[in-house]
Amino acid sequence: MALDFYHGHGSPFSWRVWLALEAKAIPYNLKVLSFQEKDTRKPEFSAINPRQQVPTIVDDGYALWESMAILEYLDERFTSGLKLYPGDAKARGRIRRLAAEAQSYVRQEAIDPIVDEFFWKEGAAPDEVRIAKAREALERELAWFAGELKGSYLAGDQPTAADFMLYPEIGYAKRITFRKPDSKLADLIPPAIAQWAKRIESLPYFDKTFPPHWR
Amino acid sequence: MALDFYHGHGSPFSWRVWLALEAKAIPYNLKVLSFQEKDTRKPEFSAINPRQQVPTIVDDGYALWESMAILEYLDERFTSGLKLYPGDAKARGRIRRLAAEAQSYVRQEAIDPIVDEFFWKEGAAPDEVRIAKAREALERELAWFAGELKGSYLAGDQPTAADFMLYPEIGYAKRITFRKPDSKLADLIPPAIAQWAKRIESLPYFDKTFPPHWR
Repeated sequence: MALDFYHGHGSPFSWRVWLALEAKAIPYNLKVLSFQEKDTRKPEFSAINPRQQVPTIVDDGYALWESMAILEYLDERFTSGLKLYPGDAKARGRIRRLAAEAQSYVRQEAIDPIVDEFFWKEGAAPDEVRIAKAREALERELAWFAGELKGSYLAGDQPTAADFMLYPEIGYAKRITFRKPDSKLADLIPPAIAQWAKRIESLPYFDKTFPPHWR
Repeated sequence: MALDFYHGHGSPFSWRVWLALEAKAIPYNLKVLSFQEKDTRKPEFSAINPRQQVPTIVDDGYALWESMAILEYLDERFTSGLKLYPGDAKARGRIRRLAAEAQSYVRQEAIDPIVDEFFWKEGAAPDEVRIAKAREALERELAWFAGELKGSYLAGDQPTAADFMLYPEIGYAKRITFRKPDSKLADLIPPAIAQWAKRIESLPYFDKTFPPHWR
């Protein structure tokens, strides 16, 4: 029985899971919730996930949320397709460390404040100091991740959970640069990460996961 | 060969790992770094962890940081003592979901801003609106976790990674209340969580992990 995947277009957290579902060739029913329509707050979804957040999966009656917990679950539950955490305990530890770093430093320290300042101030001017600090973090972190590449991807010749955690942040950096060209975020992407991102974007299932309203 | 555990007293992240090392009866060399002495920024530690952060472990030459990655590693690498992620994929998924929630909602949404406002403003007055919002989050989240108790602990009759992720936040809430009685944070701890915290505090190894400068 296919699992239900509750997704919101543009959620970086949900994008991580979609890439993983595809890479592992797990059958799923895509349930797109609209943020604009406040679908995540409707009673039918709140009954599934009281935190009212995507991504959420429901596997044979079992509901799970929090993207990193879902990635681990998918890899334990389904042996098909790609291994998201391949290798021995040390290799798996490194993948989890990179995943946590993508979350803490790229998403939370760099992209979150930039999105906040550019898009959530209801017309108020962005805080230039905060943006400068976040840009600095982004530059530093992308250089860090460039140094962590091992072959084509972060942990070898196939993508892993670490790559799927990081990629949506690059997607965001590009999208923000498109919406706010003065932010010049794309200029902060080092060549090795730009090439890596192109590899992710060339995966056969990538296109269908791309937020349709970003095209 | 015992692994090296680099710890800083008072780091909630490092506390999680210490509790886990003890619960699993893993032999370790405790290496206490002093934040005051800026030990984490010294070249000898930067060479081990360029992020200059605790917790860090070194297991037979393999260095790992990020507390949640370390907890997973310890459970995969060492079969001794407590299972930090016991059960089937669904049970393990739930433990990881709770661990992520403790990090995002209790630490980052509630405790971090409160610590910030009370202790990192260099004499400037705390932002009362920000504190009120964080208190609200703390109250809501501790009620949530009270509802997630399954028996004595979050996932049954033994502590798991979820309990060790959450406990240091309760330790912090109590400590902040001691330092800033007006914060009344301890009043927000519901009885079920207070009793759960007492169970953690009664574990035979708890005392040695308690920050000595908090006594």
